[in-house]
Amino acid sequence: MPLTAPVTPALRRPARLSRAAGRVPTSTIRDLLALVGSDDVLSLAGGLPALGAVHDPVLAQVAAEVADDAGNLQYGPTEGLPALRRWIVDLLHRERADPPADLDAVRITHGSQQAIDLVVRTLVDAGDAVVVERPTYLGAVQALAPADARVHAVPVDEDGMDTDRLEAALRRGLRPVLCYLAPTFQNPSGVVMSAERRAHMGALADRYGFVVVDDDPYRDLGFDVPPPRLRRWVPPEWSVTVGTFSKVLSPGLRVGWCHGPDWLIAPLTRLKQATDLHTSTLGQQVVAAAVARPGWLDRRVAHLVALYRHRAGVLSTALRRLAPGGLDHADARGGMFLWARLAGHPDSAALLPHALARGVAFVPGAAFCGGGGERSDHLRLCFASLDDADLVEAASRLVGAVDDLCAADRRGSGGGRSAIMIDEPARHPPA
Amino acid sequence: MPLTAPVTPALRRPARLSRAAGRVPTSTIRDLLALVGSDDVLSLAGGLPALGAVHDPVLAQVAAEVADDAGNLQYGPTEGLPALRRWIVDLLHRERADPPADLDAVRITHGSQQAIDLVVRTLVDAGDAVVVERPTYLGAVQALAPADARVHAVPVDEDGMDTDRLEAALRRGLRPVLCYLAPTFQNPSGVVMSAERRAHMGALADRYGFVVVDDDPYRDLGFDVPPPRLRRWVPPEWSVTVGTFSKVLSPGLRVGWCHGPDWLIAPLTRLKQATDLHTSTLGQQVVAAAVARPGWLDRRVAHLVALYRHRAGVLSTALRRLAPGGLDHADARGGMFLWARLAGHPDSAALLPHALARGVAFVPGAAFCGGGGERSDHLRLCFASLDDADLVEAASRLVGAVDDLCAADRRGSGGGRSAIMIDEPARHPPA
Repeated sequence: MPLTAPVTPALRRPARLSRAAGRVPTSTIRDLLALVGSDDVLSLAGGLPALGAVHDPVLAQVAAEVADDAGNLQYGPTEGLPALRRWIVDLLHRERADPPADLDAVRITHGSQQAIDLVVRTLVDAGDAVVVERPTYLGAVQALAPADARVHAVPVDEDGMDTDRLEAALRRGLRPVLCYLAPTFQNPSGVVMSAERRAHMGALADRYGFVVVDDDPYRDLGFDVPPPRLRRWVPPEWSVTVGTFSKVLSPGLRVGWCHGPDWLIAPLTRLKQATDLHTSTLGQQVVAAAVARPGWLDRRVAHLVALYRHRAGVLSTALRRLAPGGLDHADARGGMFLWARLAGHPDSAALLPHALARGVAFVPGAAFCGGGGERSDHLRLCFASLDDADLVEAASRLVGAVDDLCAADRRGSGGGRSAIMIDEPARHPPA
Repeated sequence: MPLTAPVTPALRRPARLSRAAGRVPTSTIRDLLALVGSDDVLSLAGGLPALGAVHDPVLAQVAAEVADDAGNLQYGPTEGLPALRRWIVDLLHRERADPPADLDAVRITHGSQQAIDLVVRTLVDAGDAVVVERPTYLGAVQALAPADARVHAVPVDEDGMDTDRLEAALRRGLRPVLCYLAPTFQNPSGVVMSAERRAHMGALADRYGFVVVDDDPYRDLGFDVPPPRLRRWVPPEWSVTVGTFSKVLSPGLRVGWCHGPDWLIAPLTRLKQATDLHTSTLGQQVVAAAVARPGWLDRRVAHLVALYRHRAGVLSTALRRLAPGGLDHADARGGMFLWARLAGHPDSAALLPHALARGVAFVPGAAFCGGGGERSDHLRLCFASLDDADLVEAASRLVGAVDDLCAADRRGSGGGRSAIMIDEPARHPPA
């Protein structure tokens, strides 16, 4: 089968990516984590659950039992395992979810990241407007990038997204297809959206017609009790709830879920089928078997909450003692992160080389704000992964790095950017 | 925070799907599998590995060991676990892969379906031309649907895709970005592409500049030795190889992989990160630990091949004995499927209600051909899942259904579509 005629070079197609692929940014955080793999660096950068708390002999026992049944190694339904979907409906019922959750509306996904990606692919065409918080979860920005959405970021204050500003934008003609929120112990800010704002958001979704995604991975890690999920206030036809077992059970299992209206969930399920057929049967069965053990998950969550509350306090106290005013932050109310402000310097990314040089890592605020603008003077600090001694040492190194940055600024600008300013604690997370 | 001004109804955005989501068809096969869940139906429709052969106490043991290490329950790299990627490079090396495989070029995916989906999303814009086989793997058609590609299907004969016809189309101006092939014991036809055709495909990719995806899930299930993978003949910059552990280890683990050039793999990795962060650490570790056991996988594969060869023979013999000429097919050379032709009737979908009424299921050929056209007179019959007695009974029911269809045709058309014709066995899979 010879090629009998030459092809002119002009006809040879050059290698070329799709427009979608060309738009996806890499994760600043994952790039950073790759850099800080060294044992010499204490990392406040990741969002990893405490390794010691992840381990549990029950999981090994459950995994063995599950893998000993060939049915758990076979193909499974795209919708997810019925037993696990039932458990999620029951969870929402225990939370007194109103309106009641519908088993047929629950889908199991390969982590909650896949739920976000599928919702975006199901709803968003190029040029569509999408509302997010500023700051927002970086993974949501990544999932939105291939869709080429026009991302409209609405600032978060201490009560969550400023829905008055959203309403003003809607009045000016903004017509989003989707509003993505992580309203409970948000990553990165730790903020909890108030019940009043939640109600306002639901009313806006109803008036203007857009899907509200309530991404709620940290709800169980609250030091205080958060308001009900957004689904209480958002009309069912516009309401999507996203959850995960990553924070309380294991991120490595990649088992998340979403709940939404049929008009959205049915095509999302077809897209899921085209994407990966179904979520790992083994992973789903391990989760289903573990959470079915009476009291096991409750004990585990109680342990995690106590541990994280303690660690948040250790880091917070160390920072206040070592850098009064220089790294201002509000107390954490749950979740895994402190959101600190570098007083007196507009871009916390400038701090990073100094921090790495001293052996501590964090994530600059710009990573959560589309790469710049407001909140670029912030740092996300994860308190979940390190033990007490390492948290105190990390705080000490970080404060040393702030001093180094000040010194460098003075040298570089002849004293123009002189020092770390003390900021009003009440303003953080900033309004 | 009241809504202070009314919104005119016209400003309320109606619920609307993305164009991509609106294009994704449901899987005929999965819809069918949902129908045939009844114990009364013997299913030749699925593509499920034999359940008895999937079970192995080693997997339970490995799962327990893996889940007892908290590191295996933690977040992992988007690229996949290095140990598993190394195993894949070594596999290609054992196959004397030429050119040698590159560790940095291997990515672990959530099943090979995700590898296909990610390659499509990385390369294909709306309106781009994509070449597939006719018939082709239904999952590939589903993965292509959201991209809105112009799908150009090139017929498969007994030597695989007819590359002369592809070359003719290229000469007429076809400029595909991608050619998707399952050239080894193809699903559904079972055909193996000849070495000569593989070489021709590689030359065409080089001349015209398009990515060749060699999706190779059934290679290890060969009753005879297949030709080398396409990557021997395709220039490295255009060559993507896709594999999976679903057929020889467990589909429920959802662990697949791909290997390709850096210009494609780097953005594919960012897209994977945006899609689901990474593939299940637990699933990857279970696979890595199981295949690391000396000789274990080889023994398992040898057992599967002997079992499937036997079962293919049982189904084949029963069909030839019961329906000489009425359901013509070539002997299977590997994989999991017989591809039979319903002689004398243009659409095997017409047979399906009769088959279900008699308690046997299969997949109509049109499902693999974009819903119609050539090969709609074919049936895909999976011989892997049923034991000998059930295979013989299924064949008997299927032949009974063919008789029922003939009788119905005679009644309906007054004898116009009269009977099952005997066809030349040498022509199947048809040229």
